[in-house]
Amino acid sequence: MSRSPSLSQLRESNAFLNRHLGPDAEEQQAMLASLGLGSRVELIEQTVPPAIRFNRALDLPAALDEEAALARLRGYAAQNQVWTSLIGMGYHGTLTPGVILRNVLENPGWYTAYTPYQPEIAQGRLEALLNFQQMTIDLTGLDLANASLLDEATAAAEAMALARRVAKSRSNRFFVDEHCHPQTISVVRTRAEAFGFELIVDTVDRLSGHEVFGALLQYPDTHGEIRDLRPLIEQLHARQALACVAADPLSLLVLTPPGELGADVVLGSSQRFGVPMGYGGPHAAFFACRDEYKRAMPGRIIGASRDARGQVALRMALQTREQHIRREKANSNICTAQVLLANIAGFYAVYHGPQGLKRIAQRVHRLACILAAGLERHGIVRVNRHFFDTLTLEVGGSQTAIIESARAQRINLRILGRGRLGLSLDETCDENTVARLLDIFLGADHGLDVAALDAEDLESGLPAELLRRTPVLSHPVFSAHHSETRMLRYLKQLENKDLALNQSMIPLGSCTMKLNASSEMIPITWPEFAQLHPFAPREQATGYKLMIDELERWLCAITGFDAICMQPNSGAQGEYAGLLAIRRYHESRQQGQRNICLIPSSAHGTNPASAQMAGMQVVIVECDEAGNVDLADLAAKAREAGEQLSCLMATYPSTHGVYEEGIRQICEVIHQHGGQVYMDGANLNAQVGLARPADIGADVSHMNLHKTFCIPHGGGGPGMGPIGVRAHLAPFVANHPVVPIDGPLPQNDAVSAAPWGSASILPISWMYIAMMGPQLADASEVAILAANYLAVQLSGAFPVLYSGRNGRVAHECILDLRPLKALTGITEEDVAKRLMDYGFHAPTMSFPVPGTLMVEPTESESKAELDRFVEAMLSIRAEIAQVQDGHWPAEDNPLKGAPHTLADITGVWARSYSIEQAVLPSAHARAHKYWPAVNRVDNVYGDRNLFCACVPLEAYR
Amino acid sequence: MSRSPSLSQLRESNAFLNRHLGPDAEEQQAMLASLGLGSRVELIEQTVPPAIRFNRALDLPAALDEEAALARLRGYAAQNQVWTSLIGMGYHGTLTPGVILRNVLENPGWYTAYTPYQPEIAQGRLEALLNFQQMTIDLTGLDLANASLLDEATAAAEAMALARRVAKSRSNRFFVDEHCHPQTISVVRTRAEAFGFELIVDTVDRLSGHEVFGALLQYPDTHGEIRDLRPLIEQLHARQALACVAADPLSLLVLTPPGELGADVVLGSSQRFGVPMGYGGPHAAFFACRDEYKRAMPGRIIGASRDARGQVALRMALQTREQHIRREKANSNICTAQVLLANIAGFYAVYHGPQGLKRIAQRVHRLACILAAGLERHGIVRVNRHFFDTLTLEVGGSQTAIIESARAQRINLRILGRGRLGLSLDETCDENTVARLLDIFLGADHGLDVAALDAEDLESGLPAELLRRTPVLSHPVFSAHHSETRMLRYLKQLENKDLALNQSMIPLGSCTMKLNASSEMIPITWPEFAQLHPFAPREQATGYKLMIDELERWLCAITGFDAICMQPNSGAQGEYAGLLAIRRYHESRQQGQRNICLIPSSAHGTNPASAQMAGMQVVIVECDEAGNVDLADLAAKAREAGEQLSCLMATYPSTHGVYEEGIRQICEVIHQHGGQVYMDGANLNAQVGLARPADIGADVSHMNLHKTFCIPHGGGGPGMGPIGVRAHLAPFVANHPVVPIDGPLPQNDAVSAAPWGSASILPISWMYIAMMGPQLADASEVAILAANYLAVQLSGAFPVLYSGRNGRVAHECILDLRPLKALTGITEEDVAKRLMDYGFHAPTMSFPVPGTLMVEPTESESKAELDRFVEAMLSIRAEIAQVQDGHWPAEDNPLKGAPHTLADITGVWARSYSIEQAVLPSAHARAHKYWPAVNRVDNVYGDRNLFCACVPLEAYR
Repeated sequence: MSRSPSLSQLRESNAFLNRHLGPDAEEQQAMLASLGLGSRVELIEQTVPPAIRFNRALDLPAALDEEAALARLRGYAAQNQVWTSLIGMGYHGTLTPGVILRNVLENPGWYTAYTPYQPEIAQGRLEALLNFQQMTIDLTGLDLANASLLDEATAAAEAMALARRVAKSRSNRFFVDEHCHPQTISVVRTRAEAFGFELIVDTVDRLSGHEVFGALLQYPDTHGEIRDLRPLIEQLHARQALACVAADPLSLLVLTPPGELGADVVLGSSQRFGVPMGYGGPHAAFFACRDEYKRAMPGRIIGASRDARGQVALRMALQTREQHIRREKANSNICTAQVLLANIAGFYAVYHGPQGLKRIAQRVHRLACILAAGLERHGIVRVNRHFFDTLTLEVGGSQTAIIESARAQRINLRILGRGRLGLSLDETCDENTVARLLDIFLGADHGLDVAALDAEDLESGLPAELLRRTPVLSHPVFSAHHSETRMLRYLKQLENKDLALNQSMIPLGSCTMKLNASSEMIPITWPEFAQLHPFAPREQATGYKLMIDELERWLCAITGFDAICMQPNSGAQGEYAGLLAIRRYHESRQQGQRNICLIPSSAHGTNPASAQMAGMQVVIVECDEAGNVDLADLAAKAREAGEQLSCLMATYPSTHGVYEEGIRQICEVIHQHGGQVYMDGANLNAQVGLARPADIGADVSHMNLHKTFCIPHGGGGPGMGPIGVRAHLAPFVANHPVVPIDGPLPQNDAVSAAPWGSASILPISWMYIAMMGPQLADASEVAILAANYLAVQLSGAFPVLYSGRNGRVAHECILDLRPLKALTGITEEDVAKRLMDYGFHAPTMSFPVPGTLMVEPTESESKAELDRFVEAMLSIRAEIAQVQDGHWPAEDNPLKGAPHTLADITGVWARSYSIEQAVLPSAHARAHKYWPAVNRVDNVYGDRNLFCACVPLEAYR
Repeated sequence: MSRSPSLSQLRESNAFLNRHLGPDAEEQQAMLASLGLGSRVELIEQTVPPAIRFNRALDLPAALDEEAALARLRGYAAQNQVWTSLIGMGYHGTLTPGVILRNVLENPGWYTAYTPYQPEIAQGRLEALLNFQQMTIDLTGLDLANASLLDEATAAAEAMALARRVAKSRSNRFFVDEHCHPQTISVVRTRAEAFGFELIVDTVDRLSGHEVFGALLQYPDTHGEIRDLRPLIEQLHARQALACVAADPLSLLVLTPPGELGADVVLGSSQRFGVPMGYGGPHAAFFACRDEYKRAMPGRIIGASRDARGQVALRMALQTREQHIRREKANSNICTAQVLLANIAGFYAVYHGPQGLKRIAQRVHRLACILAAGLERHGIVRVNRHFFDTLTLEVGGSQTAIIESARAQRINLRILGRGRLGLSLDETCDENTVARLLDIFLGADHGLDVAALDAEDLESGLPAELLRRTPVLSHPVFSAHHSETRMLRYLKQLENKDLALNQSMIPLGSCTMKLNASSEMIPITWPEFAQLHPFAPREQATGYKLMIDELERWLCAITGFDAICMQPNSGAQGEYAGLLAIRRYHESRQQGQRNICLIPSSAHGTNPASAQMAGMQVVIVECDEAGNVDLADLAAKAREAGEQLSCLMATYPSTHGVYEEGIRQICEVIHQHGGQVYMDGANLNAQVGLARPADIGADVSHMNLHKTFCIPHGGGGPGMGPIGVRAHLAPFVANHPVVPIDGPLPQNDAVSAAPWGSASILPISWMYIAMMGPQLADASEVAILAANYLAVQLSGAFPVLYSGRNGRVAHECILDLRPLKALTGITEEDVAKRLMDYGFHAPTMSFPVPGTLMVEPTESESKAELDRFVEAMLSIRAEIAQVQDGHWPAEDNPLKGAPHTLADITGVWARSYSIEQAVLPSAHARAHKYWPAVNRVDNVYGDRNLFCACVPLEAYR
């Protein structure tokens, strides 16, 4: 009789873990052996200081396999209800064209890409972002646009900050039209308070009574009114103040652009250009300003430059920005953009073109006209005289009945106080929507017929003097790709130019480019997650609540914190939100004078910028020669700060890729002096399951869900930076003016537009944790193993700059290129560009130490891929040796010539090295050659000749 | 007061049409102008014979836009119920790994590819198919496998045909184990009848009593029994007969492969390797045989050969197959494979690897063991002594109660007569499934616990003497890609080698490579369409029924036929099914002697093969010099056939790309002689909305849903070939033994395994028609416009071989390369390969006329893309001129050297032309270079040195 193995014998308890990890057990053993170790346990003992070790299993449910996790999440999704949300307030129903949905949003070629710091291998998404900028310029009527901000509300806050930077007015006051969206006002208020600006929220009729450095107006305003902004803007300009206008992009197809009305800054959300509402995000905010303010522009700007062959080449312009130049004086900490979503919005414009977009805008407006006419005939008073898509209506005592009636039709209206209701139509609405709304507002016997109304010569809701007269989207790219076949191929051509995680490892120190598993990505486009309005009644979002609550519990278990604030929609935003909580905490204890923030010199530029934005004074703490925080200096600075000490910001493991032994002591020193500890979560990937920030001594920390918790980088966004806090800080995190959140004090203003930030991508992190469970620690261990494996393999060729106990690094390591540069003139940039010829994305360049490369392999790279990287780096080292020994001239060698393009090798070849050496330097390149689209990009030329709109076709010839 | 345009003015009535068509209105005008015409109306008047013009609007509902069509179809989908189907019978629940779902099944890079006739630009999918073959070889224990057949039942029929071709036995009898799946028996019976084989369906115990040329056995059989086949096989071999075994692939991980038991042919369905059940298909059947039968192998075989540089290069081996060599003597018409699905199954094996697959098989088996033990303890008698995953149970009078109880749990069991029930477990089942089944069969108080049973030392259901002892999937490819990151990159590397519609037009005459829109593709992976078992109770498939019924009505409206048979799952299968209907019709009228099928000499090779398979005698009708059917010869042959005339098979427009004027007359002649007209639907794309086959005179016609109706080609399948028939033929189309179909006579056997063929891809065609409505005619007109535009642009350089009235072609045109070949030695193949250097897929080569290229641009290609093609062809013509005038030697020029690879230009370059001429011959190539992965492939070498398994890694070095 034969026996069959039992289910328990056959159970693959780590089903997903084994898919997530790159090296399998055998490969891990080989990697350990090369470190002279026999087990991961030994490695971790050698690496992580015992004082901070978390020696238990994480308190998480057992890992689910992919199907079970998807089934569980589907159960949550089923508890969300997808109603027709006409709430407006900057969020609108939209149709994502199928070709964009499938080939961008659901395509790893786009969503696994990194921020285009290396432009030669990112020309595809740079072109897409340039389209987005051109679209913004055209819609707003301004000179220059950036490649997206986090959301409309933070964009408004950035506009205020820009205004303060550039306005000639000496006022400390900023004016906000009270008819801006409430969440915008709240976020601006948060920002103003921290900056110490006086905020005046009032009706614009009283603008003239205030001396201000700038004002924020909304066009159309939150109640749908469309006002001629010119008189207001003239008032502002007369007082040397800036006019900032938050605008609706669809309305700008038919309305005079604010730029033409004189606005200095125009911003808004591009969500309704094909990006699902997603219960609040992610979406890309647009932001445009006059040319004269370009050096003050927040966020990333894409511009055209030329490459080493003189051809047009795109790249991020003016890269040395606020937080880099001014650090602790910066008033913007913007880092992440919303690239994936900006690309979708830009492609939406490419797909529809000027006529198509105008038709959509006109149709939405016509539906609103019909509805308005019908309501008017039955005596319903409209509050806003003019309108584009939004009607605010006086319904008096019928309010409740109308709301009930709408509910029966599964329609959400905007509920305003004082017997008012609002509604905003969008491109998903049609005649039937209008007919249902007439029934809802007028009862069944209104006797009106939508078609009959449409046949009438109805008055437009748009003011005649504000009709758009200038063309939009005239660049050919917006008229060339309207058939699906052309659009598909355009998307593919751009994708093919870029290197993303689906082709190669992207060993970026501090950025944790690990696997973004398909089953993590699949839920985000389920309609039950994608189609919810962020301000929909809570009972329609039960599934979201269950998922978010659970994710919060899990993140608490992982970090040791007591509460999570999900609102910050980027890492830098998390820093800012955390520091604000500290600030409010001190204030609550009558210690409002505590405003000094200690920051180690090795910190990421966002740290001082965030501190400055939170109204703190930054004091730098030195590092010792080993790269660790100088404890003596820390103690001195803390003592010196005394009663003024607010907090310390520290990254752990350090930005030098090392588990500093002194971290507990550091935290204790801060606490002894009454300060709080902010732990930057950029390197959390090396802590999960091995140590917990709260246990170490942190009071608050942000978690980059787009690093450690698998949200893909999307080519430079979206990100998510929720913060964990200890209980004493929990009351002081962000709340929301529209959707009150349990926990934080009700009076706390918001840091982001939506209550839970970019809620629709939270399922990614939920799935990751659900499928990993307590085995998350394995991921951290393998990440550390991979980094140490690389460090050992490469240290003979390139010195590893810092290491901790037993000579081990944490999850990343810094390779020092400076000695070789001194000897040969070959720089870290040459090596970075040369890696492209081998088919790699470069590691992080010159952060945190100039002249170095910081390598983070993550746990998801196989030993084969690590070995391929080692082989490439050693081969490059051998190339440098040939420069060193004079075999190749200092300026004519594969490193200085890198990256090499097809254009190089099909023209005249007169270099000291061969074509094969240039473009096929490895077996992998021979088998799977990836071609950089352009030669090395000239950044200086681009910044001197700034050109940030779509390039005329002739320029390419 | 300003006015807003009305909704009716803003309505875009052709929203989808404008996305589907390549040229917009302006471009169409320009194209018409180049033909000297002012409107499409004029063009169609000049082109389509008035006698056949359909001068009304198609009787179809008005076009829906994409969202509305999706919403409607979602409504249908919601009426399907996804139960747990344990019906088995060759269809099983399976989990499609997310990384494969997203990056293959939902990725146009894979699904829009064409059959790899041009191997240099198809190495990616050729490698994927080779994996599938290797997997088949390993699982079956045989020498050689093909790259998939349509389904298990037709594969069984092909096995019978192969057996007859190669068996030394002179018998005319074929034996089928009565415990084969009923749909398999039915399809084999259909095929045997038409061939005139005597089919014996009996218990295998009586096999020895029959003299046969072969037998079909099932392993495990349809009731789950596992029998040692050796004695049966020995009996067959002793009589010089072939042993064909239908096997379950998952069971072969743990059972001795039939090849090791002596089987000559092993076949089955690979569905449960990651391909959703899809209510019947599409799935890939696998098929393997002994090496000695390789020249008789049906279907496509992928093999390794070498390229012009001597490197390993894959391609389709032994391409000159049955229907090409033997035409009217062929006994296989197999043309389409199920490439996309075979790739998915192969990737499933790559992803899981040998250990993973074995674990899945063992786990399914263990679940069955536990269930079997539990049922046994309560006295339920099992019919099959041994089992892998399938139990057949005697439940006597409890049958109804158990079925009811299962229904309450939303579980489908297999209902057998005589108080029996069957069930098959699969990888989606778990402990909970078993527990529910115990409750269902035993009631709630059975006192059994799954975990407790699992803890016992249960007897295996597998016969000890049939345990698998030989390794499987030993090739490294099955062990290298188990992390998702590696799998993702492997898929991407393969995809990047291939040229598909997402990169370039594929102007294949007769194959209609038009847009496969995203919104057409989206529904096929909705669980409500993807997860249904084909034999699930009809009431669970209401949505499918509504969708299929509507699609049938629409296809009737388009073709003029009275009824549709959805069963044939390929075009050739449609031909066969249609001819069988004709045969049965004649028989029903006591005209069984009518067996002559007239076929024009220009016909596709499948036509005579299908006729032969339908038991008909083929008589060829000549064409005249203009390429049209020679009417005099037709009349003579029809007269000659007389009372024996069964039918004519004709393609319309003709395979020469021309609307033959005489088509009505041709049909009349056939009808006058008592024959039926079969119209091959390959060129239906030029008829839709302009003419209707039934109006012209056809009695039956198949429709290639994968050509005219937008199902993507998937790299060589799936296809769908439903047939339309006039009312008198309707009773004679295929029925189904398991799921009776309304309409056809109940006694009609099946032609395919599933009642509605590949049902899960029908939503693609449904969406297309729903979104086009009566504007389908516009697509046909633009297709004709595009072909005539190309013909005019190119005819100066390459003579257009045939044309119809007014010198116009239909939707495709034939370019004659023979004169140039005579002058220069440059062949149509040289031009085809040279087009790759320009980034194009070649047109159809040497069909229907050797030495020509047949170009079909379709309606979806923009004027820009057509112009790019024209430019490339004219540039190639200029290159040929340089050979002609002696500038380049006859054997050293860009045409003979094509396609050029990276390896060419990075090594020593010593040719008469430059590197730039070689690889960057056009502006498009300079901007978006596509690289063929290998140089020109040597077919002769490959066929002489046939190697059809995965290539050892060393061979690549």
